Amino acid sequence: MKYTKHDLQTMQQRYRAHFVNSLSGYKSANVIGTQDDQGFTNAAIVSSVIHLGADPALIAFINRPHTAPRHTLENIYATGVYTINQVTSEFYENAHHTAARYERDQSEFDMANIAVERSEFPAPYLADAKIKMGIRFCEAKTLEINQTVLVIGEIEEVILAPEVPIADDGKIDISAPGTICISGLDEYHTASSLGRLAYAKPVTFLDK
Amino acid sequence: MKYTKHDLQTMQQRYRAHFVNSLSGYKSANVIGTQDDQGFTNAAIVSSVIHLGADPALIAFINRPHTAPRHTLENIYATGVYTINQVTSEFYENAHHTAARYERDQSEFDMANIAVERSEFPAPYLADAKIKMGIRFCEAKTLEINQTVLVIGEIEEVILAPEVPIADDGKIDISAPGTICISGLDEYHTASSLGRLAYAKPVTFLDK
Repeated sequence: MKYTKHDLQTMQQRYRAHFVNSLSGYKSANVIGTQDDQGFTNAAIVSSVIHLGADPALIAFINRPHTAPRHTLENIYATGVYTINQVTSEFYENAHHTAARYERDQSEFDMANIAVERSEFPAPYLADAKIKMGIRFCEAKTLEINQTVLVIGEIEEVILAPEVPIADDGKIDISAPGTICISGLDEYHTASSLGRLAYAKPVTFLDK
Repeated sequence: MKYTKHDLQTMQQRYRAHFVNSLSGYKSANVIGTQDDQGFTNAAIVSSVIHLGADPALIAFINRPHTAPRHTLENIYATGVYTINQVTSEFYENAHHTAARYERDQSEFDMANIAVERSEFPAPYLADAKIKMGIRFCEAKTLEINQTVLVIGEIEEVILAPEVPIADDGKIDISAPGTICISGLDEYHTASSLGRLAYAKPVTFLDK
């Protein structure tokens, strides 16, 4: 089945949203934890967190206009810090509920029954998350093409639960603690490893 | 286990790469197909493709400096078009091999045993991919913070294999055709659906 640009443009809006959101493949599932300058906490699930670099350790997410994480961005600007918490199959339904539009004085931690965990890092973690990071905001780039915002931060703290295995070479086994992924707007998936592959090197025709 | 910024900075380089690349969660697995102005094809696996918007249908990826997709970016600049092809469990080993550094006159399609498919869209598709898109390059933003490049394009064509189910509301079932995801630098995963969740709406305390 082939779809043209015109087909995409003339789809009904919600149909197009589901369709196009499925095309990029699986997405990461993370909850961003923030608080405002009064200490009111906020949690928001995002499917757009991406690795940006290892040294310095940079991580980014896309904040779309008119989606739930509006308080998230305001809090990040106000405090300069946030947490990123990998969603597991144990609490994904609560994590999904953080997408609902609550008022500023209603914390999604409370409304979605998610417990707060604190470290010295000055932003709220999710107690149930097995892999979580404290992030220092670096910069936000508005993409003029559709007014989305690329939010870039540096990883300043990593907290791994005891059951998270780390390979001798540093690879973290994120499937062991039950990390899940997202497709489209609303489908959640567990993942099973096919294994790791060796660093890809060119072969010569003689090798083949 | 807690890691500080100093711990991250003092990790051995490859250890840090594996470790930090695992922190963002699961990544999409796509191969980007391009050709230069002479028609020489190129294929490169990327784990950084993200949805950017549905209307217009925008998709982006991060091109890191000094990684395999160097010819990819040159070709995109030269021709203005490329394809994005979801990797399935059937050809992920070949897709992984496209990360090897070949010379410009050695097509990864040939070197990794990946068959080219053509449509009217002027960039090479992967014949084995079940979900694939023809993309018109829009813009590239260099992120000064670490010299990565955010490459933004508009989806102009979508080709779905007959076995790809589409729900009544437009959601594409990407697990049915075997789409996989990536963790870290080199681990591949199949995914199993936990189901779709309803659009999240605020509940009042009376509802709870």
